[in-house]
Amino acid sequence: MTWQLALQLGTSDQPLFERIAIAIATDIERGRLRVGTRLASSRTLAQQLGVNRNTVVAAYEELCAQGWIAIEATRGAFVTNTPIAKSALAGADGSSTLGYPEHPGFELPADALDVETLTGRPPGSLVLLGGVPELRGAPRLALARAYRAALCGAGARRLLDYASPHGHIKLRTALAHLLSHVRGVAAPVAAVTVVRGSQQGLYLASRALLRPGDLVAVEQLGFRPAWRALELAGATLVPIPVDRDGLDIDALEAAYATRPIRAVYTTPHHQYPSTVTLSTERRTRLLSFARRHRVIVFEDDYDFEYHYEGRPVLPLAAADRAGVVIYFGTLSKTLAPGLRIGYVVAPPAVAQQLVAYRRVVDTQGDAVLEHAVATLLEDGEVQRHTRRALALYRRRRDALCEALQRRLPQLDVPAPRGGMAVWASAPGIDTDAWVKRGVAAGVLFQAGSRVRFDRQPDPHLRLGFAACNESELVEAVDRMVRALP
Amino acid sequence: MTWQLALQLGTSDQPLFERIAIAIATDIERGRLRVGTRLASSRTLAQQLGVNRNTVVAAYEELCAQGWIAIEATRGAFVTNTPIAKSALAGADGSSTLGYPEHPGFELPADALDVETLTGRPPGSLVLLGGVPELRGAPRLALARAYRAALCGAGARRLLDYASPHGHIKLRTALAHLLSHVRGVAAPVAAVTVVRGSQQGLYLASRALLRPGDLVAVEQLGFRPAWRALELAGATLVPIPVDRDGLDIDALEAAYATRPIRAVYTTPHHQYPSTVTLSTERRTRLLSFARRHRVIVFEDDYDFEYHYEGRPVLPLAAADRAGVVIYFGTLSKTLAPGLRIGYVVAPPAVAQQLVAYRRVVDTQGDAVLEHAVATLLEDGEVQRHTRRALALYRRRRDALCEALQRRLPQLDVPAPRGGMAVWASAPGIDTDAWVKRGVAAGVLFQAGSRVRFDRQPDPHLRLGFAACNESELVEAVDRMVRALP
Repeated sequence: MTWQLALQLGTSDQPLFERIAIAIATDIERGRLRVGTRLASSRTLAQQLGVNRNTVVAAYEELCAQGWIAIEATRGAFVTNTPIAKSALAGADGSSTLGYPEHPGFELPADALDVETLTGRPPGSLVLLGGVPELRGAPRLALARAYRAALCGAGARRLLDYASPHGHIKLRTALAHLLSHVRGVAAPVAAVTVVRGSQQGLYLASRALLRPGDLVAVEQLGFRPAWRALELAGATLVPIPVDRDGLDIDALEAAYATRPIRAVYTTPHHQYPSTVTLSTERRTRLLSFARRHRVIVFEDDYDFEYHYEGRPVLPLAAADRAGVVIYFGTLSKTLAPGLRIGYVVAPPAVAQQLVAYRRVVDTQGDAVLEHAVATLLEDGEVQRHTRRALALYRRRRDALCEALQRRLPQLDVPAPRGGMAVWASAPGIDTDAWVKRGVAAGVLFQAGSRVRFDRQPDPHLRLGFAACNESELVEAVDRMVRALP
Repeated sequence: MTWQLALQLGTSDQPLFERIAIAIATDIERGRLRVGTRLASSRTLAQQLGVNRNTVVAAYEELCAQGWIAIEATRGAFVTNTPIAKSALAGADGSSTLGYPEHPGFELPADALDVETLTGRPPGSLVLLGGVPELRGAPRLALARAYRAALCGAGARRLLDYASPHGHIKLRTALAHLLSHVRGVAAPVAAVTVVRGSQQGLYLASRALLRPGDLVAVEQLGFRPAWRALELAGATLVPIPVDRDGLDIDALEAAYATRPIRAVYTTPHHQYPSTVTLSTERRTRLLSFARRHRVIVFEDDYDFEYHYEGRPVLPLAAADRAGVVIYFGTLSKTLAPGLRIGYVVAPPAVAQQLVAYRRVVDTQGDAVLEHAVATLLEDGEVQRHTRRALALYRRRRDALCEALQRRLPQLDVPAPRGGMAVWASAPGIDTDAWVKRGVAAGVLFQAGSRVRFDRQPDPHLRLGFAACNESELVEAVDRMVRALP
């Protein structure tokens, strides 16, 4: 890789060759030119700078004499940075603070945002993190082909250009089809917006619909980045208990009676992190509550497909006739999280506002990728992959539960009806210490404290089973046993 | 594409086959099942529902008798939707509001966000919009190859997984190299964050560094979505005049004397939209002002490479030793806007806060794409493409200026030293009317009012020359002549 030199020659009255030499030496001292880097030939640099070639030759000779560079017949001039007399080349202002500034030259806000960053994954670790799917079988070749077809096809120029912040029409159509035929949500294309994962969907919907001071009910156990999205829009969160039937609607109604809430954020299909499904009776009551009080329901349905006992329960959005549900889906679990394809289903007037914020937040999506993913949906590639994953995950769920029961009988391990993780309870065990010791033992999992609204210690563990095969799961449980505090 | 039916069979005391028939008819009425759609075979549906096949056969026969579906020997059952007796299948609650809700069932915020959406581009239009690059020569095949190599290579599983919100290390390294060697910014990799275009970079930096009530100075002529990003973080904008030497530093200092400002957002290299370059004297004064008052400088350098007279002027960030400059760049102009690859260069402590917000806003970038684009940078593909584009754009700039001088002598058309657009003045002409009439005549361009802070009518035009070849530019000017109000 050869780059043009970026020299500021200044306007001092030194001879030109000296100014060139100083500029290059400064670049070396600042680290812009690294040891071993080849300089441009004197002919090339002279052309670039619009100076006589002899001037550059003189500058190079000066630099060579002072030890900054070496000149060899075969390699030309290259950086050595062993200067004999650095001071001879010091800047006119005697500046010694060359290089990139280490610290900001202004005050940082006092209220730094506190979000969990990605857990480092030491090499060789077995990953029992709840939301990570199996990626070894992802349809990578089909995606690469579809990507190339999109990029080199007749419409490629438009795909590479500025485009609609609603997402590519081909993907919106394929998603509308999927929503209608598999999830019972008969949304028109105008109601479907493609976003970069359900996290962005929730962020944009929050910005579009919430205002500072709005109260938003959330499940007392949940996903902290989602809560942060609501808070960044100014919402004040009201935690509501969750039990074996999901969100406690009595508690929700009691909270509303105290002070009207603007919205509820919920994961009814497989409650995050406990994986319980909201009961039919509560679903009906929640929708009726929302319709009656004109409360927004943010329904996050991040892993609809992975249901093992009977058929998936249709989303709240499928039964919503009042227009209170904003529905979030993602291809992170069925295709791959790294591609960042999610979608929001909302009445068109809401979708319009959502994309107005999207225009400011990231302009638009990646239409080439959206086109390619639409092809995978149209061809049934995603659906086939999901069906294979469903069968795989059912076996892995069983394998993990069995290994846990066998090796860690002190845990209570209910087999989840759906989802990608087990929500086990470990009474009397310091789960936070266990997780920490697990990292050292080569197994990554989560303690209940991480998903509790109040961050208190919690005797639960969330153990994902999707990303490991059956023998890896057995090994992971062995490592958990070794890591027991 | 074949999808599972999503039926909610309910729990009434009707015979099962009738409940299945009602569920299917309801789906047809709601538009979830469209005319011509093939239903699953009775065997498949029976398996899916866990019922006897004869039950499904009876349901299909009922639907056929009522005209909802037809059954043909070769095609099987498919939707016709010509029911004889819709009432016979009405829902138990007599509901007639089937389908997706048209309107939200809650109040929308009164302060809807007002952003310009993408201008529709009628087919056959010639595009003289300032920021649109030539995409016909984009290195699409090289990108498709690099994408496939990333997706099908050894590290693909990690690329598809959850990842660092800083961006892929390979692309951050390639960008650090580019910044150091071409732009004189000796930033370490820790200072470089990959984002989805400079718009997202500015949005995230604003969220990370600004707080409600902060004053931010902006150029009186500028890019409205950038201003919105600052405002969404709570900033109050203070417009500062721009003249032929760029941002007016006297006016900036006067504004500061009235009330301290927190930050300045500026486009010093090619001022948007006027394309003027900030003079050397003002650059020095701006940096000194920022250092003295600990004011943040948001430097948006969206088209560094496209400078036609002499070499590009190095960014403010290259001369910043105090850590006051946050630098935004993009590959939108050198590769393609649709890919949404941009970057932010900031002291590491700032980068940390920026990615904390990024975690909430869109989780992370697309590592597969970032890996592929890094390959194009390492191979020099982007650089070669940019060099070709630079030569192309210089000719196009000259062709547009010449055509304008010949056909529209009433305009004042200074040839820009850099950038992708001409900033022409059209004294005495209603430029807003001209733009509107231009759309009808098949030529798209912008009037000054669109980029003025106060939105007042303005006698300037912004005419992009990058996306059209020379004969298209001549034709575009012909259309402008025909559209003259």
